[in-house]
Amino acid sequence: MSDNIENIKEDMIGLLNKDSDIKKSWVEDNHPIDIAEALLELEDEEVREFTALLNNKDLADIVEQSEEKLQKNIIKTKTLEDIISIFSHMATDDITDILGNLPIKIRKKLLEHMKQDEAKILKELLGYAIESAGGLMTTEYILLYKGLTTEQALNKIKEIGPDTEVIDTIFIMNEEKALVGTVDLREILNFPDDMLLEEFMDDNLILVTPEMDQEFVAHQVAKYDLSAIPVVNKNNLLLGIITVDDIIDVIEAENTEDMFRMVGVHEEESINSPLFKSVKRRLPWLFINLGTAFLAAFTVGLFEDVIVQVVALAAAMPIVAGMGGNAGTQTLSVVIRGIALDEVDLSESWKLLLKEGLVGLINGIATGLVTGVILYLMYGNPYLGIIIFLAMMINLFIAGLFGYLIPSGLKLIGVDPALASAIFLTTATDVFGFFAFLGLAKIFLEYLL
Amino acid sequence: MSDNIENIKEDMIGLLNKDSDIKKSWVEDNHPIDIAEALLELEDEEVREFTALLNNKDLADIVEQSEEKLQKNIIKTKTLEDIISIFSHMATDDITDILGNLPIKIRKKLLEHMKQDEAKILKELLGYAIESAGGLMTTEYILLYKGLTTEQALNKIKEIGPDTEVIDTIFIMNEEKALVGTVDLREILNFPDDMLLEEFMDDNLILVTPEMDQEFVAHQVAKYDLSAIPVVNKNNLLLGIITVDDIIDVIEAENTEDMFRMVGVHEEESINSPLFKSVKRRLPWLFINLGTAFLAAFTVGLFEDVIVQVVALAAAMPIVAGMGGNAGTQTLSVVIRGIALDEVDLSESWKLLLKEGLVGLINGIATGLVTGVILYLMYGNPYLGIIIFLAMMINLFIAGLFGYLIPSGLKLIGVDPALASAIFLTTATDVFGFFAFLGLAKIFLEYLL
Repeated sequence: MSDNIENIKEDMIGLLNKDSDIKKSWVEDNHPIDIAEALLELEDEEVREFTALLNNKDLADIVEQSEEKLQKNIIKTKTLEDIISIFSHMATDDITDILGNLPIKIRKKLLEHMKQDEAKILKELLGYAIESAGGLMTTEYILLYKGLTTEQALNKIKEIGPDTEVIDTIFIMNEEKALVGTVDLREILNFPDDMLLEEFMDDNLILVTPEMDQEFVAHQVAKYDLSAIPVVNKNNLLLGIITVDDIIDVIEAENTEDMFRMVGVHEEESINSPLFKSVKRRLPWLFINLGTAFLAAFTVGLFEDVIVQVVALAAAMPIVAGMGGNAGTQTLSVVIRGIALDEVDLSESWKLLLKEGLVGLINGIATGLVTGVILYLMYGNPYLGIIIFLAMMINLFIAGLFGYLIPSGLKLIGVDPALASAIFLTTATDVFGFFAFLGLAKIFLEYLL
Repeated sequence: MSDNIENIKEDMIGLLNKDSDIKKSWVEDNHPIDIAEALLELEDEEVREFTALLNNKDLADIVEQSEEKLQKNIIKTKTLEDIISIFSHMATDDITDILGNLPIKIRKKLLEHMKQDEAKILKELLGYAIESAGGLMTTEYILLYKGLTTEQALNKIKEIGPDTEVIDTIFIMNEEKALVGTVDLREILNFPDDMLLEEFMDDNLILVTPEMDQEFVAHQVAKYDLSAIPVVNKNNLLLGIITVDDIIDVIEAENTEDMFRMVGVHEEESINSPLFKSVKRRLPWLFINLGTAFLAAFTVGLFEDVIVQVVALAAAMPIVAGMGGNAGTQTLSVVIRGIALDEVDLSESWKLLLKEGLVGLINGIATGLVTGVILYLMYGNPYLGIIIFLAMMINLFIAGLFGYLIPSGLKLIGVDPALASAIFLTTATDVFGFFAFLGLAKIFLEYLL
């Protein structure tokens, strides 16, 4: 990737002194997203010089692909008229995102200077939560009356088409303007000229409402292989559509989120985040982990008298805790993914809990047996072997249960199931692991001496 | 989800005695993917009865959405002729997937009974690795000569359109049949009838070759917001296209893979996997973890003499190891995602390594300071506090380094960067954590007594 960006960046700097035809053809030869990424690497002054050369259409393509910081940077060098002209080349969902990031004063000013009907749409879109269907939707769709013939429809499509985000799916409404079906553009191109849309439209609609969570929406689009999903209000009026390219971004983001949150990393962190931002974002989770680590230490502390007498316990106890942590994280990641992909049948929750517990138990017996035999051979004491076998069996069983209970519990109380779940889980497996192992050792102390 | 599937399943069983018109309209009212999911819940005999009622077109829609097991189940009840007729309603990528799962004998028989040209295409597609661009691509695209007028193009599209997977992007070739550009259907609908495609085609192509890894392909589609990406050979001949709906599946799968592999879970496991399959798939990783846990235990064992004298060390040592494990996993997940999203600039590898080391160091100082003070207050010995502070500083620094080195090292030797990386990482943080803490305690033993 970055080699390419380096090249584009060098090209750009070289272009600053060239005449505008050369610049223009260079812009046409590069993808807006690549230009946007290269601009991010330039100094503010260079960005200004470069963007001053572009027409508003090309600038719109670049701005809508840019990160927030660059967007602000470009916007602030432009006049109100220029910005509104740039917006005129963009889809409403992208304009909404940009407006949402601007200071309220500038946002208000821009909305005042726009055409009234356009400002009205944008204000409505700005009202939805960013991670909801409403926050993702755009208003550039084709909505036709079901009583049109394919010929009439095709003429309308030719007229509206250039301004839409999706052309292969045409939305169909009835007399009350309620959404009643979709038609595939292929069918319009293929069916006789006088056939009515309602005769062949697909009325088996997959719909969402604007307040729905983006993860659910993404799941619907992925499941039903849609190129766009309609967003409707309670009266089934079409409010907007969400296109598949935005859905891909949601899926990427949600997946990063699951993986990061599980281990206590802020979802906005990336490998290229600055040092102190990374520190600031990770440290709070580490302090939470520290609190839970003290719980584990406290558990061990309860058995200091036992450890003094059988110091082999100190060496063996990390095995019990570590294996529980690993087995539990296995369950945890399977359950978190299952919830994210909507594969968990909550009415059968106890079956899944039982299964995960049993998987842990069986794996605990298998690995505990091996561990027990090795410890027996190392220390020559069969009771130490039996105790670690029992402790691992118990701890991996508990690990399976908690691996299921933590994410489904978080889900139940309306929190992200992944949130810091690995931290909670290893607390449980550490505390129970140490307690089971050292507790058993205390009970059978006379056999260990 | 599953409520819906339950309903559909009940509907299906109820339909078994109804006449075929009722069945047909029921099939039309339900989405093939929902029917496929409900069929998975039925007994083999019920599946047979139900599928016997459907025509081959409807069956094709259901089969292409089914899981492997159900596909085989349906296929085996059908005659060769029926199967070939079902295939005729499917895209080549879906047929290839099904053929790839069938026993070689049946696959050969089917290919022998197909039209020669179709069998040839399928044999070629079967030759590509499943996780490569070739393994994902389909041959239902629209490829037009650049010298056509928009009117000629539109007529061709009307003719070919119904059999294609994507209609909004039209691929353009030159005299040598090499791919030279794409055209948006909107433009064809909008530009004058006699305009030539080459006059307005976009020649700034994003291409892949068939051997490229699916994760890279998905990344390109996501980055450039494509609805389909062309796959070409060395002479730029179009071999096939990969559509965005398949890309979404790749992204979902790759993300599951990253998260699962990191903690040692087989990528094909899901929350609904049967008990013994889960045990069988997770146990090998647990045994690997067990091996590494013994390394940690061995490290502790080296210092048994120290622990006997200062038993507080046994209670405090899980804090050092656990915090290192958590901090390291934070780095690990950020780096794995960075590699997956192609955000890692390998030429600046040492900078990223340094950054992650520093983040660890700073977080180690912060959390170590708090831990040191608490231990001092608990045990009244300032040296114990200083030792744990130093050990945490060292261990979180090491955790940052290994969190970067493990996945980028795995990547370097051509292995999935996520593979069991959390297991390797916690081994490192356990061993170094125990060694640093207990080693320092040994050196300063006289101050601890």
